[in-house]
Amino acid sequence: MRTPADNAQLALLLEVAGTPKPGNVDRHREYDDLRFEHFLAGSVGAGDGLRAAEADAAIGSAFEECVEGMSHQRGGNTQFGCLLNLVPLVQAAASNRLSPTGVQAVCRETTVADACDFYRAFEHVPVAVDDPPADLDLPDVRRGADAAMEIRERGLTLWEVMELSAPHDGNAREWVEGFPRSFAAAEEVLADEGTATERAARAFLRLLVEEPDTLVATQHGPDVAREVQERAAAVGDDLDRAAALAEEFVDAEINPGTTADLTAAALFVALERGWQV
Amino acid sequence: MRTPADNAQLALLLEVAGTPKPGNVDRHREYDDLRFEHFLAGSVGAGDGLRAAEADAAIGSAFEECVEGMSHQRGGNTQFGCLLNLVPLVQAAASNRLSPTGVQAVCRETTVADACDFYRAFEHVPVAVDDPPADLDLPDVRRGADAAMEIRERGLTLWEVMELSAPHDGNAREWVEGFPRSFAAAEEVLADEGTATERAARAFLRLLVEEPDTLVATQHGPDVAREVQERAAAVGDDLDRAAALAEEFVDAEINPGTTADLTAAALFVALERGWQV
Repeated sequence: MRTPADNAQLALLLEVAGTPKPGNVDRHREYDDLRFEHFLAGSVGAGDGLRAAEADAAIGSAFEECVEGMSHQRGGNTQFGCLLNLVPLVQAAASNRLSPTGVQAVCRETTVADACDFYRAFEHVPVAVDDPPADLDLPDVRRGADAAMEIRERGLTLWEVMELSAPHDGNAREWVEGFPRSFAAAEEVLADEGTATERAARAFLRLLVEEPDTLVATQHGPDVAREVQERAAAVGDDLDRAAALAEEFVDAEINPGTTADLTAAALFVALERGWQV
Repeated sequence: MRTPADNAQLALLLEVAGTPKPGNVDRHREYDDLRFEHFLAGSVGAGDGLRAAEADAAIGSAFEECVEGMSHQRGGNTQFGCLLNLVPLVQAAASNRLSPTGVQAVCRETTVADACDFYRAFEHVPVAVDDPPADLDLPDVRRGADAAMEIRERGLTLWEVMELSAPHDGNAREWVEGFPRSFAAAEEVLADEGTATERAARAFLRLLVEEPDTLVATQHGPDVAREVQERAAAVGDDLDRAAALAEEFVDAEINPGTTADLTAAALFVALERGWQV
């Protein structure tokens, strides 16, 4: 049987293989500098960190180990956000707490050391982030390990970092709310029919309709993020229409990465709940 | 850095992602009952066995663990032959013996217990094998663990099983000869240019030209295996022509699986020798 760490690795692979996922690297599409193979290498490299999470290592340290391992490929940041979601979910599954309240408890137990390791993880790959909003009272993540002193002085736990980030970041919101969108999407994957790569694509499309994608908003502004959401709503579950949209989004380099991060979380939960591949 | 077990897992993933690989499942092609996702799950499932091989477990037991782990997906046998090649190569790499003579020494050290575990591995998935040839003095592998008593009475080591199988099986030949084709193909991968999935495809195409594929010979007879070899020779390194051949071979269900097994071995050696993905 696959362990939670195995299922997390498989979720990373099924996420990137899912096709068509408009704007993202998928089984049939890639960018010149961010290719399918980079995601395969990232998934393999994250293995040790995922197994550490399963073996009850601290969330921050397991996450940093995942990101460090992921970084040994030439595509840069492939799965930073996916791993941020998967690490607490793996730990919840390994301790029989894979429910919204269970994983929320795992997240709430994080410490100041976890926050420092989270910041350190930003040193391994270039993560697409904007200048922090004026009303966000947190050290800039781009400071990496240099932010540790401020984190310690202020006694900020990783939970508190995520809570403060939640209004600005789709992954942080999911993290502090007990992954409600991921758990709901997992149920849809389980109820869906068709191949795993089709189910992954439909999960992605549904999540894309729900909320503006944080990464698109960061890279292209909030108006484009809302437009992407509307275009996805018009496509619905229709994979042929999604394929046409995929060509268009890839050309425009519109990359709904945060939605992919949630898709990976949803696929993980579905695998843990008995989805047979 | 990736460990040998990590590189073996990545080699499995890059092998199946390599495209176009005429007749085999690849990034863009699959069969209704043998899909890309089955190979992803097989690669993840083999992880524990590959890590056991790296940690110096017995070859037979590590291989059986790989196959058992690989079997937790609905495609049946995805990577039995790949793993048969990768397990001794991983162990050779982990003990700084990754050369033809080094891996041959690893294989030569196998025992009767390794042979019994090799037979047991056939119980986990349906492996495509014919009735054993009349001149092959070995228990039928389809007997699985039931063959153990005969193996023990005759004192057959895994090395001897492979030596006897070598005239009939491309993987067994590679195994007892120190993987000469895999090491040569790895050098070509390192010298090649282009994306990882293109390099994997060209490695496959070159290996397909060298010898008739054992699995094609088993499933369609020796004449078809020779014809496949000739068709591949006419295509050469040209991936556009290979794509056309791929459509034709998939329609005819011609699946050069043994050549894919050698490709995975070649990709592993290339990764160990510094190939950057």
